[in-house]
Amino acid sequence: MTPGPVEVDPRVLRALSYPILGQFDPEFTVLMNETSELLRHLFRTENRRAYPVDGTSRSGIEAALVSLIEPGDRVLVPIFGRFGHLLYEITERCGATVIAIEREWGGVFSPEELAEAVRRERPDLVAVVHGETSTGRMQPLDGVGDACREVGALLVVDAVATIGGVPVETDAWQLDAVVGGTQKCLSIPSGMAPLTYNDRAERKLLARKRIERGLRTAGGPEGGPEAWERQAAAVIRSNYLDLSQLQDYWSPARLNHHTEMTSMLYALREGVRIALSEGLEARFARHELHGSALAAGLAAMGLELYGDPASKLPVVACVTIPDGIDGERVRAMLLHGFGVEIAGSFGPLKGKIWRIGTMGFSCRRTNVLHTLGALEATLLRCGYRLPPGEAVQAALDVYERSGAGAGV
Amino acid sequence: MTPGPVEVDPRVLRALSYPILGQFDPEFTVLMNETSELLRHLFRTENRRAYPVDGTSRSGIEAALVSLIEPGDRVLVPIFGRFGHLLYEITERCGATVIAIEREWGGVFSPEELAEAVRRERPDLVAVVHGETSTGRMQPLDGVGDACREVGALLVVDAVATIGGVPVETDAWQLDAVVGGTQKCLSIPSGMAPLTYNDRAERKLLARKRIERGLRTAGGPEGGPEAWERQAAAVIRSNYLDLSQLQDYWSPARLNHHTEMTSMLYALREGVRIALSEGLEARFARHELHGSALAAGLAAMGLELYGDPASKLPVVACVTIPDGIDGERVRAMLLHGFGVEIAGSFGPLKGKIWRIGTMGFSCRRTNVLHTLGALEATLLRCGYRLPPGEAVQAALDVYERSGAGAGV
Repeated sequence: MTPGPVEVDPRVLRALSYPILGQFDPEFTVLMNETSELLRHLFRTENRRAYPVDGTSRSGIEAALVSLIEPGDRVLVPIFGRFGHLLYEITERCGATVIAIEREWGGVFSPEELAEAVRRERPDLVAVVHGETSTGRMQPLDGVGDACREVGALLVVDAVATIGGVPVETDAWQLDAVVGGTQKCLSIPSGMAPLTYNDRAERKLLARKRIERGLRTAGGPEGGPEAWERQAAAVIRSNYLDLSQLQDYWSPARLNHHTEMTSMLYALREGVRIALSEGLEARFARHELHGSALAAGLAAMGLELYGDPASKLPVVACVTIPDGIDGERVRAMLLHGFGVEIAGSFGPLKGKIWRIGTMGFSCRRTNVLHTLGALEATLLRCGYRLPPGEAVQAALDVYERSGAGAGV
Repeated sequence: MTPGPVEVDPRVLRALSYPILGQFDPEFTVLMNETSELLRHLFRTENRRAYPVDGTSRSGIEAALVSLIEPGDRVLVPIFGRFGHLLYEITERCGATVIAIEREWGGVFSPEELAEAVRRERPDLVAVVHGETSTGRMQPLDGVGDACREVGALLVVDAVATIGGVPVETDAWQLDAVVGGTQKCLSIPSGMAPLTYNDRAERKLLARKRIERGLRTAGGPEGGPEAWERQAAAVIRSNYLDLSQLQDYWSPARLNHHTEMTSMLYALREGVRIALSEGLEARFARHELHGSALAAGLAAMGLELYGDPASKLPVVACVTIPDGIDGERVRAMLLHGFGVEIAGSFGPLKGKIWRIGTMGFSCRRTNVLHTLGALEATLLRCGYRLPPGEAVQAALDVYERSGAGAGV
């Protein structure tokens, strides 16, 4: 019950164990094409480019940033938690001049504040977190895209924690590049970073593109060696995470790059297929319901939910650790006594809050009710005073009111 | 029967489908420690650092290079095939001044030639391919390490194609950093890049180390924010592939970085365990035997093996496509008619050679004999004149002479 990695659907675990296909085997390239099509639906986009980067979520974020940021570019990074700092960190390492705007942890920006900052700073790129799991906050993004287009900035979004659990409207919100995560609301093991980007983003990539040495054929394409070398100054600083090369590998040209992660691709395809067959709206409603039931139960125990309620991320509950309670001891008792894993947090929130996820396959009634029961018993055992029995009842009330029934 | 990705042992496929453990679950961190210990044996090293980078093989190569090369460093890259060009490409993107020495494709350098180049050029780092699958060549490395130590250069080796199939002597050959591949002789799906490096390499990393923004605690370690920022100029250009951060994640401190690829780690551990339980020497002998049997069969068909025989990589046979034969048509007939996949090559060798791998779980007698029979039938069908029936007999002769018996 952490904010990832979460339990994986047994069908995804089974997909992982299919035999290996060669990466240029026609049977495998069909799987690649199908995966792209599934990802377009997941991201709600008509973008031509939708494919995974072969690495964990942050590899996808770094791929988008290192490919779209030229050294010297001005990049606006709104920060309201650890993963905003990560965007700052990566952006800085890409050679950008970073303009950070910070909000105290526990809150977010309004879209109007972000749009105003974009118009004021006129950056080349804006990099922003959608679901900030370190603080359990969700940043509203609808309305920022217009300002970005006005000033010619690309809008790049870290939707690692939200994709598949909360609406992520790539086209409707005018997001230029979006990176999703697998091990959270999609319930696929960590190891791939699905992303999508539009033609505005691709134009910037193409201007920096260079065909890899050793793949250049004797005759060569138009322009010859000079053309290949012309943009050496602007060349993308990474080869592994170079989206201009990756998109060729994922296009009908299938220009060789890395050796695709066969087993992980099976898992990604199966996991996204399952998410879409549940139906995205139904899936978002399920995450909303169980997140609410968990929050109601926690409140009924007298625990304080951390942060501004208006910006609560539906798929993570952050709980202030009560005075006098050893947060790590509670986590260890939950894990060893009840087989329930919850998370701590990072940086300034280390030791201050617990984080409980309701994501993907883990986001179900049985898990919410057992977690509440186990946490109540553990807190009682640690001497915390609470009204016994109320937490689970409060969650059952939420289920009953939702029309889902009390399950009894 | 390509030079990767190859078939995976069923035990590794099964390991992939184990349920997900949380990345800080004590049960999972035990698996991480066990994996490091297994990798030390695989790489034949006493190095403290031995762990996987979460990405395909080239992510490991880029991690080693981007972490060990400071912009402006002089890097010597011997090139004798596509993957030497890849090292050049990555090294250049890291901001190095690259000194390339090239050998015509089909040959390699002698260790003495490499040592002489090192003494002449006095680079900061040498990046070299051990098994060059694009041309089917193996670069001898024993003897180069001394020269590197004399001039203070780090010796970084791409052992992607050789690890687990051919001796890779990290300590005995004085290799400072070695990157292995999973989807070749280890028969693990593509998706992780095991690597190791010694204290010489680690000293260079530590000089460039910076703790990630958002993980810095309020009090902070010695030196404060100034210390964190001091080395901004030398900071490693990638966050995802920053070995100075990854080694903290893999150390008892377990400082959070990415979300470890749970399922792939299960596969890596199981695959390396299987390789070590076979015994590395027995495994190398098996690769040598089946590679020889395949080569004998190909020669008996009247086919020409590409390149200098003295430097043949035991685990890949490169075959010159005979005049008048359409190489891609033969590959398609093998795949669709016989279920046997062989590979073409890259760049100047595209359309000129086929590449047939004998790697890992695919490296077995039944596969060698069926492949020879299928290739013979396909070539006859395409009108190529060859002495029918001799190829399989020649391979059986090799098996018989080896004492392994003819298997009949």
